[in-house]
Amino acid sequence: MGESFGAYKIGLDEEAVKYISSANIACGFHAGDPQVMARTVDLAATHGVAVGAHPSYPDLMGFGRRNMEATPGEIKNYIIYQTGALQAFARARGAGLQHVKPHGALYNTAAVDKKVARAVAEAIYTLDKNLIFMVLAGSEMERAAREVGLKYASEVFADRHYNGDGTLVSRSHPGAVITDTVEAAARLTEIITTGRIKAIDGTSFPVRADSICVHCDTPGAVEHIIALRRALKGAGIEVAPMGEFIK
Amino acid sequence: MGESFGAYKIGLDEEAVKYISSANIACGFHAGDPQVMARTVDLAATHGVAVGAHPSYPDLMGFGRRNMEATPGEIKNYIIYQTGALQAFARARGAGLQHVKPHGALYNTAAVDKKVARAVAEAIYTLDKNLIFMVLAGSEMERAAREVGLKYASEVFADRHYNGDGTLVSRSHPGAVITDTVEAAARLTEIITTGRIKAIDGTSFPVRADSICVHCDTPGAVEHIIALRRALKGAGIEVAPMGEFIK
Amino acid sequence: MGESFGAYKIGLDEEAVKYISSANIACGFHAGDPQVMARTVDLAATHGVAVGAHPSYPDLMGFGRRNMEATPGEIKNYIIYQTGALQAFARARGAGLQHVKPHGALYNTAAVDKKVARAVAEAIYTLDKNLIFMVLAGSEMERAAREVGLKYASEVFADRHYNGDGTLVSRSHPGAVITDTVEAAARLTEIITTGRIKAIDGTSFPVRADSICVHCDTPGAVEHIIALRRALKGAGIEVAPMGEFIK
Amino acid sequence: MGESFGAYKIGLDEEAVKYISSANIACGFHAGDPQVMARTVDLAATHGVAVGAHPSYPDLMGFGRRNMEATPGEIKNYIIYQTGALQAFARARGAGLQHVKPHGALYNTAAVDKKVARAVAEAIYTLDKNLIFMVLAGSEMERAAREVGLKYASEVFADRHYNGDGTLVSRSHPGAVITDTVEAAARLTEIITTGRIKAIDGTSFPVRADSICVHCDTPGAVEHIIALRRALKGAGIEVAPMGEFIK
Repeated sequence: MGESFGAYKIGLDEEAVKYISSANIACGFHAGDPQVMARTVDLAATHGVAVGAHPSYPDLMGFGRRNMEATPGEIKNYIIYQTGALQAFARARGAGLQHVKPHGALYNTAAVDKKVARAVAEAIYTLDKNLIFMVLAGSEMERAAREVGLKYASEVFADRHYNGDGTLVSRSHPGAVITDTVEAAARLTEIITTGRIKAIDGTSFPVRADSICVHCDTPGAVEHIIALRRALKGAGIEVAPMGEFIK
Repeated sequence: MGESFGAYKIGLDEEAVKYISSANIACGFHAGDPQVMARTVDLAATHGVAVGAHPSYPDLMGFGRRNMEATPGEIKNYIIYQTGALQAFARARGAGLQHVKPHGALYNTAAVDKKVARAVAEAIYTLDKNLIFMVLAGSEMERAAREVGLKYASEVFADRHYNGDGTLVSRSHPGAVITDTVEAAARLTEIITTGRIKAIDGTSFPVRADSICVHCDTPGAVEHIIALRRALKGAGIEVAPMGEFIK
Repeated sequence: MGESFGAYKIGLDEEAVKYISSANIACGFHAGDPQVMARTVDLAATHGVAVGAHPSYPDLMGFGRRNMEATPGEIKNYIIYQTGALQAFARARGAGLQHVKPHGALYNTAAVDKKVARAVAEAIYTLDKNLIFMVLAGSEMERAAREVGLKYASEVFADRHYNGDGTLVSRSHPGAVITDTVEAAARLTEIITTGRIKAIDGTSFPVRADSICVHCDTPGAVEHIIALRRALKGAGIEVAPMGEFIK
Repeated sequence: MGESFGAYKIGLDEEAVKYISSANIACGFHAGDPQVMARTVDLAATHGVAVGAHPSYPDLMGFGRRNMEATPGEIKNYIIYQTGALQAFARARGAGLQHVKPHGALYNTAAVDKKVARAVAEAIYTLDKNLIFMVLAGSEMERAAREVGLKYASEVFADRHYNGDGTLVSRSHPGAVITDTVEAAARLTEIITTGRIKAIDGTSFPVRADSICVHCDTPGAVEHIIALRRALKGAGIEVAPMGEFIK
C-alpha cells in the first residue's frame, strides 16, 4: 500500500484496507512520498490494520522491480533509512511498526542471496529487535531471520506462480501473476489444507503460511481479498495482524 | 555535517567533529545519503558530539538553498520523513537524537513565515516532544517553539552577516559569509559580551545565544571553530551539547 | 501528454491524441521518463500530431506545480536540457520539434516575471530559432518572444478561469478548473467570436488565440476536446498544427 | 569531465582540459546537472577539445558504477535522452557532438553483453549515424558498432588493469586503478609499441588503440596526462580529436 507518488495514484488502498490485517507501506525509494506515507499510515491505523515498512532499492523509475548491484552495507543502510522514516510516521500517528518486508527486486534477491538476506535481517534487528521480518516462506530470508534472532512471518502468495525452488516466477514471464479470483482462492485453500505449494514445473514443496500477500495494484484486488478471506474462513482459519500470533 | 553524497565529498567532517559539541546532520533531501548518514552519526557518536537532524526541502540539485512553494502540510511531512530516517541511524548506533534544525532555504523561510515555522515545530513535537528545536534567535521559529511547547536553542551565526530585522543576509549577496577567522571571532565576542548583534545596516538588536553555528564547508572552517572556542573561553563561556543546558 | 512515469500512468493520451493538432510532451523533470517520452513521441507522430517540449522545474514530487527560486541561468539550462532530450526522441522517430511550452509553475512564473520569460525565450532561441514559443496570450512570455525574435503562438485556456490581469486563477483555488464540457465550449466560442476573455472579477481583456490548451488529465478530457472542436467548427475555424500558420 | 553536481565538485576539469583532445561529458544520470553541462561544454569548446556524451544508468547515488537490471529498450532510451540533452548544450555553444561513450557500469556491461552493446549502438545510430561510438577495444561494443554500421574508436586505459578476456579489472578490487604516473606511461608506451595489452593474469591480447582514457577524478590526473602525452610523443604519435582520424 501507499505506492502513490505526488500526482500519481496507484492501488486501491481505500478499498483494500477494509479487508486486510497487515499493510506493507512504501517508503519513498520505489514509491510513496512523505505525504502519501502520512496518509497511508493514517488510513491503516484508522482501520485497525497493522503497519509494516516496505523498503526498496532506490529506483522510482523502475518501481523497485529491477535488480541493482548494491553491497550488503548499502542495503543495510537503505533499509534503516526507509524503515526509520516510516516508523516516524507511525509514531506520529500513535501507531507502532509491526513488521518489515523488502519490496520487489530487493525481496527477490534477499530470497536467494545469503548476504543480502543477512543484511536485511541485521538492519531490522538493529532498528528494533521486536520487529517481525516478513519473509518468503523457506527462503534465505527465513534462514537469516533465525540466525540473527528475529521473529519472522512466512509469507505465501496466492496471486503468484512459484518455481520449483520456492522462488516466485518473475513478473517478466507472462502468467506470473494470477488475476483470476477463483483460481487464487482455490490455490490458497490447497496451500492451507495441504501445507504445500505446487510449483509451475509440477513439483511441490512444503510451506509454513503465516501471511498471505495480495497486491493492491492487481486488477480486481479487492474481490481477490474478499474471496481469499472466504476461503480461509471455509478452512477454519481466522485472520489477524501477525503481531498477535508471531511471538 | 554529513553533506557528502555518493561519490561526492563536501565538508571537513573528520576534522571539525573534534571541536564541536552538536552536529546538524543532512538527511538525504539536500545532501547526505544513507551511507553518509550512517558514517556521520557514527563519527559524531565516537567523538561524543550530540546528533541533530538537518532536514531540507527536496532539492539535491540546489543543495536545499532555493526556496520552494511547499504547503505547511508538505513541510511537516518532509521533516517527519527525514528526521525519522536520521533518528533510526542514531538509534542503530545507540545514540539519541538531541535536536532538529531546518536547513538552508527552509531555515530562512521558517525564520520569517509564521505558518512554515509552526509546521516545523509541530513536526518536531509530533516526533518527540523532548527534541530541541534549533531556531534563529528572535525569529518566527522561536515563537513557534514557544507556542507549540517545544524546548529550543537560539542560534547565532558568527560567520554570516545579519539584516536589521534579525534575518541572515542572503548568500546570493557577495560578502554574506564571513570567511576571515579574526573577524568572526571578534564578532562572536561582541555578541556574547553585549548580548546584541550589529546588522549590516548599522542598527543592532538583542539576542539570546545558546548555540553558535559554523559551516563545515566554509574554507578554513576548522581554524574558524578553534578561534571561536578560544573567544568563548576568553569570555568565560564553557561549550557543551545543548541538551545539557536547554531544559 | 506523456505525463506518465515508470509504473505510474496519468492522462488519456491514447484517446486524446486523436483529437488534437499539437502535443506538449513532458521531458522528465515534472513527469515523463525516457520510455514514456519515446512512446509518446511515437504516438503523436503516428497520429500526425505536432510535437512540442513541455519542460519544467525539477520537481517530480510536486508535478512541477510548485514555484522554485531558480535563477534565470538555471532556468535557461533546464529548458535546454529537457528540450534537447525531447528533440532527440523526435529526431529518432523522424519527426521534428514544433514548439516549446513551459509547464506548470514555470509557465505561470514566466507569464509574469520578465527575467524568467526572457530566460525561457533565450533558451529556445539558442536551441533552434525556428521553434515556436507557446505563450500565455498577452503575458511577459509574449513580450519576451518578440524581443528575442522568436515565433510564438498565443494560447488560451478553455478549461481554466482567468484573473483580471490575464493570468490564470491558481489551481489551489476551488473552481480554477472548468470541468463542465458545455461551459468550456461556450466559453471558447465567446473568446473566438469576441476576441476577449471574461475574467473572474467581471472585467475582460482582448486576446489573440492561436492555440487552445486542454489538459489530458482533466476528467472528461476527450469529451471536452470533441466539444471544443465542434465549437470551433461552428465558428468557422479550422484546426491545424500551429507550425502551419505561425510564420 | 563535467561530473560535478549542484554544490558538489569532482574532477580537475579546468586543468585537465588543457591536455586532452576529446572529453566525455556526464549527462545528469550518474553526475552532471544542466548548469554543469553548460559550463563543461563551454570549457571544452573554449579549449578546442571535442565533445562527447557520457551517458549512464540512472544512479546518482552510486555514481553510475553499479549494475542495474535494465532492458535493452530502457537502455536505448536512456542513451537517447542523455545524449540528446548534451547535444543541445553543444549546439547552443555552436559546437558539434563528436562521440558517445557509455559510463561506468553501463560501459562494463556493454563490453560483455551483446544485447546491451547493440542497444547502445542503435541508440547512437538513431541519434546521428555520424557520431563515433567510443568502445572498449575488442569488446562486444566494438562488434555492435560494426554490425550497426557506426564509426568507432577503440579505447585503451593507461590507468586501469585488464583481465585476460580484455575486460577491465573491477574497481572493487584493490589495485584496479593505476595511480603511479611512471607506471601508467610505461604501460602506454608498451601498448603503443607492441600493439598488445598485458593482462593481470600474465596473458596478453592484441589491441587497436585509437583513444587513451584518463580519469579526471584520479589523484594526480593532470600529471598523468602530461606524462602520457610525453610517452606518445616519444613513440612518434600525434594526439588529435578522434573525429579527425576516425572516418
